[in-house]
Amino acid sequence: MPSEFGNKLRVSIFGQSHGKAIGCVVDGFPSGEEIDFDALDRFLDRRRGGKNKHSTPRAEADKPEFLSGVENGKTCAFPLCAVIKNGDTRSKDYSALQYTPRPGHADLTAYFKWGENADMRGGGHFSGRLTAPICIAGGIAKQILERRGIFVGAHISQIAGVKDVPFPMIPEKKMLDEISLKTIPVIDDGAGERMLLEIEKARMDLDSVGGIVECAVTGLPEGLGGPMFDGVENRLAKAVFGIPAVKGVEFGEGFHAAKMRGSENNDAFYFDENGRILSKSNHAGGILGGITTGMPIVLRAAFKPTPSIARRQKTVNLETCENTEIEISGRHDPCVVIRAVPVVEAVCALAVLDMLLEGK
Amino acid sequence: MPSEFGNKLRVSIFGQSHGKAIGCVVDGFPSGEEIDFDALDRFLDRRRGGKNKHSTPRAEADKPEFLSGVENGKTCAFPLCAVIKNGDTRSKDYSALQYTPRPGHADLTAYFKWGENADMRGGGHFSGRLTAPICIAGGIAKQILERRGIFVGAHISQIAGVKDVPFPMIPEKKMLDEISLKTIPVIDDGAGERMLLEIEKARMDLDSVGGIVECAVTGLPEGLGGPMFDGVENRLAKAVFGIPAVKGVEFGEGFHAAKMRGSENNDAFYFDENGRILSKSNHAGGILGGITTGMPIVLRAAFKPTPSIARRQKTVNLETCENTEIEISGRHDPCVVIRAVPVVEAVCALAVLDMLLEGK
Amino acid sequence: MPSEFGNKLRVSIFGQSHGKAIGCVVDGFPSGEEIDFDALDRFLDRRRGGKNKHSTPRAEADKPEFLSGVENGKTCAFPLCAVIKNGDTRSKDYSALQYTPRPGHADLTAYFKWGENADMRGGGHFSGRLTAPICIAGGIAKQILERRGIFVGAHISQIAGVKDVPFPMIPEKKMLDEISLKTIPVIDDGAGERMLLEIEKARMDLDSVGGIVECAVTGLPEGLGGPMFDGVENRLAKAVFGIPAVKGVEFGEGFHAAKMRGSENNDAFYFDENGRILSKSNHAGGILGGITTGMPIVLRAAFKPTPSIARRQKTVNLETCENTEIEISGRHDPCVVIRAVPVVEAVCALAVLDMLLEGK
Amino acid sequence: MPSEFGNKLRVSIFGQSHGKAIGCVVDGFPSGEEIDFDALDRFLDRRRGGKNKHSTPRAEADKPEFLSGVENGKTCAFPLCAVIKNGDTRSKDYSALQYTPRPGHADLTAYFKWGENADMRGGGHFSGRLTAPICIAGGIAKQILERRGIFVGAHISQIAGVKDVPFPMIPEKKMLDEISLKTIPVIDDGAGERMLLEIEKARMDLDSVGGIVECAVTGLPEGLGGPMFDGVENRLAKAVFGIPAVKGVEFGEGFHAAKMRGSENNDAFYFDENGRILSKSNHAGGILGGITTGMPIVLRAAFKPTPSIARRQKTVNLETCENTEIEISGRHDPCVVIRAVPVVEAVCALAVLDMLLEGK
Repeated sequence: MPSEFGNKLRVSIFGQSHGKAIGCVVDGFPSGEEIDFDALDRFLDRRRGGKNKHSTPRAEADKPEFLSGVENGKTCAFPLCAVIKNGDTRSKDYSALQYTPRPGHADLTAYFKWGENADMRGGGHFSGRLTAPICIAGGIAKQILERRGIFVGAHISQIAGVKDVPFPMIPEKKMLDEISLKTIPVIDDGAGERMLLEIEKARMDLDSVGGIVECAVTGLPEGLGGPMFDGVENRLAKAVFGIPAVKGVEFGEGFHAAKMRGSENNDAFYFDENGRILSKSNHAGGILGGITTGMPIVLRAAFKPTPSIARRQKTVNLETCENTEIEISGRHDPCVVIRAVPVVEAVCALAVLDMLLEGK
Repeated sequence: MPSEFGNKLRVSIFGQSHGKAIGCVVDGFPSGEEIDFDALDRFLDRRRGGKNKHSTPRAEADKPEFLSGVENGKTCAFPLCAVIKNGDTRSKDYSALQYTPRPGHADLTAYFKWGENADMRGGGHFSGRLTAPICIAGGIAKQILERRGIFVGAHISQIAGVKDVPFPMIPEKKMLDEISLKTIPVIDDGAGERMLLEIEKARMDLDSVGGIVECAVTGLPEGLGGPMFDGVENRLAKAVFGIPAVKGVEFGEGFHAAKMRGSENNDAFYFDENGRILSKSNHAGGILGGITTGMPIVLRAAFKPTPSIARRQKTVNLETCENTEIEISGRHDPCVVIRAVPVVEAVCALAVLDMLLEGK
Repeated sequence: MPSEFGNKLRVSIFGQSHGKAIGCVVDGFPSGEEIDFDALDRFLDRRRGGKNKHSTPRAEADKPEFLSGVENGKTCAFPLCAVIKNGDTRSKDYSALQYTPRPGHADLTAYFKWGENADMRGGGHFSGRLTAPICIAGGIAKQILERRGIFVGAHISQIAGVKDVPFPMIPEKKMLDEISLKTIPVIDDGAGERMLLEIEKARMDLDSVGGIVECAVTGLPEGLGGPMFDGVENRLAKAVFGIPAVKGVEFGEGFHAAKMRGSENNDAFYFDENGRILSKSNHAGGILGGITTGMPIVLRAAFKPTPSIARRQKTVNLETCENTEIEISGRHDPCVVIRAVPVVEAVCALAVLDMLLEGK
Repeated sequence: MPSEFGNKLRVSIFGQSHGKAIGCVVDGFPSGEEIDFDALDRFLDRRRGGKNKHSTPRAEADKPEFLSGVENGKTCAFPLCAVIKNGDTRSKDYSALQYTPRPGHADLTAYFKWGENADMRGGGHFSGRLTAPICIAGGIAKQILERRGIFVGAHISQIAGVKDVPFPMIPEKKMLDEISLKTIPVIDDGAGERMLLEIEKARMDLDSVGGIVECAVTGLPEGLGGPMFDGVENRLAKAVFGIPAVKGVEFGEGFHAAKMRGSENNDAFYFDENGRILSKSNHAGGILGGITTGMPIVLRAAFKPTPSIARRQKTVNLETCENTEIEISGRHDPCVVIRAVPVVEAVCALAVLDMLLEGK
């Protein structure tokens, strides 16, 4: 179904941006797993808006409430349901837009699909706000994975034309943790500052910018996944394309591999001193034939620039059937990429935990 | 399951490269659909090797045999099974490699997953040969779609550093047909010749090259797909990553969107003279919020360079547990991208037909 | 996943008997469907306890709260989430039982599966209380079906040894409505009174009784379902066996067909005056080859006697690893069958709507 | 999809009764499992017709051919495809019936669903012949289970009004083996002879009889399955209702439990001398809360009498739109129950192996 993914760990997301609440149901978490609610809150904080001028001013102070699946701070074998009440919504910002679909948004395609039945205030179920419950589920998945020595971390790889340095071949937990604490989660802080300048320039131009998030998963056992259509790439891609605004996903060298020679791109295998088989490079991004090699999974997700911009834009009026123009007021990020970093981690953690639970 | 995909149209692939046969089962084709076996054979021919020096010399003359699901040349409501017998296999080419996994291949990860139980002769179930049954299924799906005015076509967008021109905003059926007849399926034949030179150079260097395939789907109704995890991008990505050697998938502007401003990337909507809502550009690749806009779907898939190269490579010996080197003889394409073009069309046609059958 | 079912209409149930809340998420309801909340409440009322001495004295006055998927009283295209807060729970009733699994319950099997991690207070996620959110989802499905001329109704076919008369071949909506208003939903009120006597006798004996619910679905189009494993029987059975205490499901003549001759059991087809093909009898229960015939679907579900009885019972102590005995106090129905009637209707309505949305 | 079932072990059946071949694809068998082809053939023999006057005279001597998934007599990690060529078909037997749907068959519902597109010669994909590939898959599953100490066996519980004795609480492998060797697989051979008389009587009357098959699974670990909709009963029922002519499925006491008191039906737990928790009775049929108790699973499936009878029957003519009568010649079992016994074992073995592979 549209708002679900996973095989053995099934994640279901519900809610509309301006409805009563948003939330998730996760069926399949291992039982007896302690949840560190403070750590979870810090993780959710990374996604939250309202903290600085680079993000949407909508405050979402409210914390998740756990309706089921957690008892005495531990997962209790049954589906976990967590909800966040929608408090600070200003639907009137959107009422003017009801018949004038915003370019780059799902307004028009939702109209094509459901006519006027869809609750599209504030983007409805398509809103970036729906990534909050994804992060609740994914934040818990990250904790469960960490307990097994598996770490999921991401950084901004690019915003506008500014690039961060790539992850080293095996990013240490320490590095991933440090990045996660930064306001602009990058490896090279100089690049981060230049990214901020680009975002600020776009904002002054009543415009927005896109970017790329790079995510790594370390400590994974080899042998997860499988051939063809349900392998590691397929499942991660299915999950990552579920994040609003993602238009591309690549693994290892990805699109760059198209320019490489086989002799460059092949990763040579060797036995390390402990008798474990590793590779000297990781162009494959930790995946061969849809199955994990034991090297880190590396993926990159491309985000398009925020479609909500303050500039006047051409669109149609669905009521009068005339061409028209709109200006979007509302509250919007000039760049969603910063807040998207933990969301990419969240869906990757969920997809990876799902594969781990399936086992070899 | 690993070797299946689709919701309402379920495609299942079986067979190993050097086993008795390979084939597909497709459950859910509409009934009463005529199959043009000549057209299907021409389609399969585009994928077949043995035709020129740029492709593998293994001849696969044998045609598919339909065991079920087709009667009197029409789909007959029940699961379609088609098989291709494996005739021309030279397993001894591979026996030397049994304990020395080839870099860039699934040999090692299959070993991690199944030990010595997996039949990995010639790549086993991971072999590019398994794309033949995908093309049988996809070739039929293409015919069914064409009957409904929906056309799926692809071209080589890039090989090594050489780029073809991109598709026009709305590629005509005539253009797609013409490309499909070319030995090197490109729009700009000059680029095609330069690509061949790159492939030939790589071959002379005992090496290989990668590339990018661009695929378009025209004539699609608007409103297919859905939000989040089962939308158009998710489903197409899941299907396309099922093709061996694909390491990246992007839609519309894809990774390039990361460098764009919102004002550039947003597609302005307008009513055309027939009262249909279109957009003046198609940066979105025909998809907003996971739902079709009615503009063509445009996707690109990145293929890594063929991992099988004739050069000496470092690897491990799983029997002696020592580091070692191998040379791969066998028969291999220095570039899989040419033969991959119809395969990309095939999986896209299947995924699109699946969504069409689900309807709005 | 365990707590989900459906293909195109996906129903997910969460919550534990003594947790914070119970609820459902339903992905796939048609959009723009009005919900008659009063009718829904009357439907939920049929399942609620606390009304008379034949049912559990636990009061569940609280109404469902709709968190998503409903706006202005209509389904709004996105997943519907409804929750019921758990107010009146007396967990201490159960604390004594933590290490002494109740015979006939899931206490022991949950312990086998999850050790002490499962929240099994009051039966946890296995509790009959979890049928309340099933009824919210199913009650809405019933309304959507009724709008399309499809009616789902059930009656008690048997309790202990007392049998009601069976449904007529085509039960009218009026009959189904009348049954639904009765305290004991039967066709023959005399039988109903004798059933009450049996329940009362069991209660006086500190014991419980089982029974059978018969459910009919009228007005269904022909041609829904399919051969083999995803046909009408398979899907309805999968849904009905999801109700706690169900141990058997049969369609049409069901187990009785085992005693019949083909000449008796075959339903003769004929054209009625309107040129519609009907059958003169409905031994098939409206299903041939897993596909609807257009005649009413008729199924029966067997419920075992309530396992919670006040008598002293033998069991084990998981802590001391000794054989022991228990007495269950708590609050329990001596017969769940009365309250199960709307639950059977609910899961059937959901499964039928799911098939209807898939179409032919 | 209609012709598939299973979560981790995915079974797909293809073919029409009078098409080129019938077969199965099974994705997910453990790798490296030896297949005893002689034992498999003996198992298939139990289902085959043509051996005596009680079964259809159609000879199906041909053996399965394995196209993939098996190398050197072992499962080789990839999807297993086995086919049986259709040799001995006499389609002309059926041509007369094309427009006169046979009562009790899927002819009419297939026509409702697919019009004249469906290949319904000999029942098409609905034919009992399609149980042959189910038995190939299930026969292999049985061997894999036996290697793990899990045994699946069945007997005829009832034909017409004649009943066999029920299984003892824990049927030994020896008993299951002995039953499987009998022409009439029953425990009490006297009952078997009376059953034969009933079948013979029906045959002389140009009629047919139904029956019940009882199946047991012993040696299963506790803790398999789960609550609600994907538990042991749900999954087994979904599989068993996939067998043509099954109209009812029950577990443990099943429908009889409806007449019992809780004090009778509850199974008292106790520690045996090895510290294992067992129950003194097994009214639950080895399942509580959808999860295995470790006691044998016991289920019964009700088969309707063969709908193909030689008597004149009333039906419709779809071409002339008139009521009419038919006589079915062809070759048909007066009772399918004898040959159904291994089929019930096959689907149970597949469903149980699927659950076992999912693990706790």
